[in-house]
Amino acid sequence: MLTYDLEARGGLSLYEYLYRRLRDDILSGALTAGERLPSKRALAEHLRVSVVTVEGAYQQLEAEGYVDARPRSGFFVSQVDRRLPAAEEGAPVPAEEPPRSWRLDLKSGQVDPFPSALWARLTRQVLSEGSHLSPAPYQGLLSLREAIAQDLRDFKGMAVSPEQIVVGAGAEYLYLLLAQLLGREGTVFALEDPGYPKIRQVYGKWGAVCRPIPLDGQGMRLEALYASGATAAHLSPAHHYPTGIVTPIARRQALLRWAEERDAVIIEDDYDSEFRFTGRPIPTLQSIDTRGRVIYMNTFSQTISPSMRVGFMVLPPRLLERYRRELGFYASTVPTLDQQVLARFLSGGGYERHISRARKKYRLRRAAVLERFQNCPFAASITDRGAGLHFLLRLKDRPEDDEALRQRAEGQGVRLSFLSEYAAIPNPAYDHTLVINYAGLDGPRLDEAEALLREVFLTR
Amino acid sequence: MLTYDLEARGGLSLYEYLYRRLRDDILSGALTAGERLPSKRALAEHLRVSVVTVEGAYQQLEAEGYVDARPRSGFFVSQVDRRLPAAEEGAPVPAEEPPRSWRLDLKSGQVDPFPSALWARLTRQVLSEGSHLSPAPYQGLLSLREAIAQDLRDFKGMAVSPEQIVVGAGAEYLYLLLAQLLGREGTVFALEDPGYPKIRQVYGKWGAVCRPIPLDGQGMRLEALYASGATAAHLSPAHHYPTGIVTPIARRQALLRWAEERDAVIIEDDYDSEFRFTGRPIPTLQSIDTRGRVIYMNTFSQTISPSMRVGFMVLPPRLLERYRRELGFYASTVPTLDQQVLARFLSGGGYERHISRARKKYRLRRAAVLERFQNCPFAASITDRGAGLHFLLRLKDRPEDDEALRQRAEGQGVRLSFLSEYAAIPNPAYDHTLVINYAGLDGPRLDEAEALLREVFLTR
Repeated sequence: MLTYDLEARGGLSLYEYLYRRLRDDILSGALTAGERLPSKRALAEHLRVSVVTVEGAYQQLEAEGYVDARPRSGFFVSQVDRRLPAAEEGAPVPAEEPPRSWRLDLKSGQVDPFPSALWARLTRQVLSEGSHLSPAPYQGLLSLREAIAQDLRDFKGMAVSPEQIVVGAGAEYLYLLLAQLLGREGTVFALEDPGYPKIRQVYGKWGAVCRPIPLDGQGMRLEALYASGATAAHLSPAHHYPTGIVTPIARRQALLRWAEERDAVIIEDDYDSEFRFTGRPIPTLQSIDTRGRVIYMNTFSQTISPSMRVGFMVLPPRLLERYRRELGFYASTVPTLDQQVLARFLSGGGYERHISRARKKYRLRRAAVLERFQNCPFAASITDRGAGLHFLLRLKDRPEDDEALRQRAEGQGVRLSFLSEYAAIPNPAYDHTLVINYAGLDGPRLDEAEALLREVFLTR
Repeated sequence: MLTYDLEARGGLSLYEYLYRRLRDDILSGALTAGERLPSKRALAEHLRVSVVTVEGAYQQLEAEGYVDARPRSGFFVSQVDRRLPAAEEGAPVPAEEPPRSWRLDLKSGQVDPFPSALWARLTRQVLSEGSHLSPAPYQGLLSLREAIAQDLRDFKGMAVSPEQIVVGAGAEYLYLLLAQLLGREGTVFALEDPGYPKIRQVYGKWGAVCRPIPLDGQGMRLEALYASGATAAHLSPAHHYPTGIVTPIARRQALLRWAEERDAVIIEDDYDSEFRFTGRPIPTLQSIDTRGRVIYMNTFSQTISPSMRVGFMVLPPRLLERYRRELGFYASTVPTLDQQVLARFLSGGGYERHISRARKKYRLRRAAVLERFQNCPFAASITDRGAGLHFLLRLKDRPEDDEALRQRAEGQGVRLSFLSEYAAIPNPAYDHTLVINYAGLDGPRLDEAEALLREVFLTR
């Protein structure tokens, strides 16, 4: 008769402890496959516990498949493996890089300020109404898409209907959708070079062919684009990252002509288009596209916060049908709560006011930062196009290469971003050029930044 | 000299109106490429406006590329296209299907109840602290991953470190990551059949080969799995959707053996594992896997709300390294705010209490629903495994096929889900079997549901 010392069970219940002892004996082979366990009554009497206790343990073993219950026969041990020898037990888990803390970080997109009070108020409102509980339609909450469409009409002159909009959890997720939508056999993507590396990473992971296209002062070089054989081009005409180039109207029309001639699609990545400090924005490609060749996309990372994770794309009718047919099964990746709050933030005017305040703030900050850096002895020239949250600073000639400078800066806790890092096709013209995001450089931080950069570039 | 009737400008400013008239003349060709515009002073005098007004209009035209400013020469019209003929103007935008409102929806995963008050409180807390402003680390907020790891340890006996966890915006997004991680050339995915259709859709979109594997009473048929040549298997051993099958321990060990023999990976999709009403949960595959073959994944859609869009996966060390190397560039797709709130919800004990309350509620509801449906004249039998939020109801024999029944029900505003819809390999054994999600069927709605189903199935 099976015997277990139930006094040794510690804090476990009788039933739990009995279950574990039986299970261990089955796994170790002490109880062999096919062996019949004692009747519940007999074991209960033997161990001086209630039948209910034994019943509980037997039922648990049966539920997990350790024993079979045969009516009118009893409980029989199942065929289970002995414990597999521990081969990779305690295999070391690769540690994560702890988040680096920098004295000065000129690479990360800093954004400032976040409209916390209003956001909190709208969030409370939505929570109390309970309207965040239902899953959103796959393309995104209708009220949010309506608010986005209205915003695009009012501020960018784009005639867009909410049906054309697909909301997604950030730029990279949208790139993923675009890769799936456009990246069939034979699709070649033309990407601006230099350019934002994540675009190439996502399209490349999908297996699409990516051709880097060099730029001139107006954007993608047309002859290189034509020569690439591309059937899709991903570009940022409003304010290129990281060069800051703004594509003028004639070049925009030429790009649309290319798309028409080559039966191609243009993805207009309108990131960083809200903050324009000289004149008004040039009409988006989407708004002058009469042939349904342009997919427009944008996110709220620059205008509200990169921690928000909300972006959207506007599909022309022809591609909208294809999207619904082929990718329509993807559920929305943005929480309903966030979509509700954002919709109200947009439609209530909060977004517009926030942008205006931010624009004023950035205008002043940009002027202060440009002036300060223009006067720094290590700066040869500054390229700024009167838009966006970054500019280029060309260093005075020096022997070290970009990588050596980057490492020296890192050693001093300064994170620098070099234009050359963004180029797939190397070009000496890109050397010694910093990409500086100025959004976070308010008064004290600007002083600090200047001091640290002088340390990096002027000391030996 | 150019002449424009500025009185006709309506609500536009002088500068704006002048800019538009000039632009239109350039686009229409009335002003030809290379033509020199009047000097600012001359035009200002002629139109009786200030020089500043003309200057503003000219600068805008120049910024947009309609004119070139040549120092000491003047402003010259650029070469721009005439407006392209409107070819697809007003191309009809395919309308969306309006959200269908059903009298009874037995297909959608209903979840009830959402912990609104606590969620609102935690949200206010996070907002006031401002800790939601920074983008989260790419694998997800550390405090959230720690809370998830703790939860897995406490309630599932899984030894998991936060470094192994990757947080993502819902199950489909995680499937997308898995497809990229595992779906190289030659990878064959074994999928349970019947099964959750989105899995096949996402992997299929990626281009991976998917083999449907039929089931027996314990899960995937082993001989079919071996015969499939698969190198990855995606399964739900805790409570299969939609059959409800619970995979016992011996079969789990056999599956691990298969993975070891075939150098394969198992994706343990632990959806719907929290609500077990008989006995305790069987150890997860991940917890008995000593060879690093199992990727465990789960979401909070069932346990909190499908509108939340938060899921996670636990990568074994070997695959974690590969993930970081190949997919490590993907930023987190869950808003920082939501991650912060969820982390506190978990670590403060709110989640555990919520689950307990929900489990009690569902236990009672399940019992009531099962009893009611068992006694319905149209039901032949009910299959329920004592776990999860759905069960199978086999209809009594009848001439119509599943599709005819589904349409008849739809005509009466009732949305039904048939087991046969989930099978890639048709099998008459699946016919006439409803998959019923009972989570939303509280007292009044249960009465309503019974009445509507009687209408559908018993009237001619």
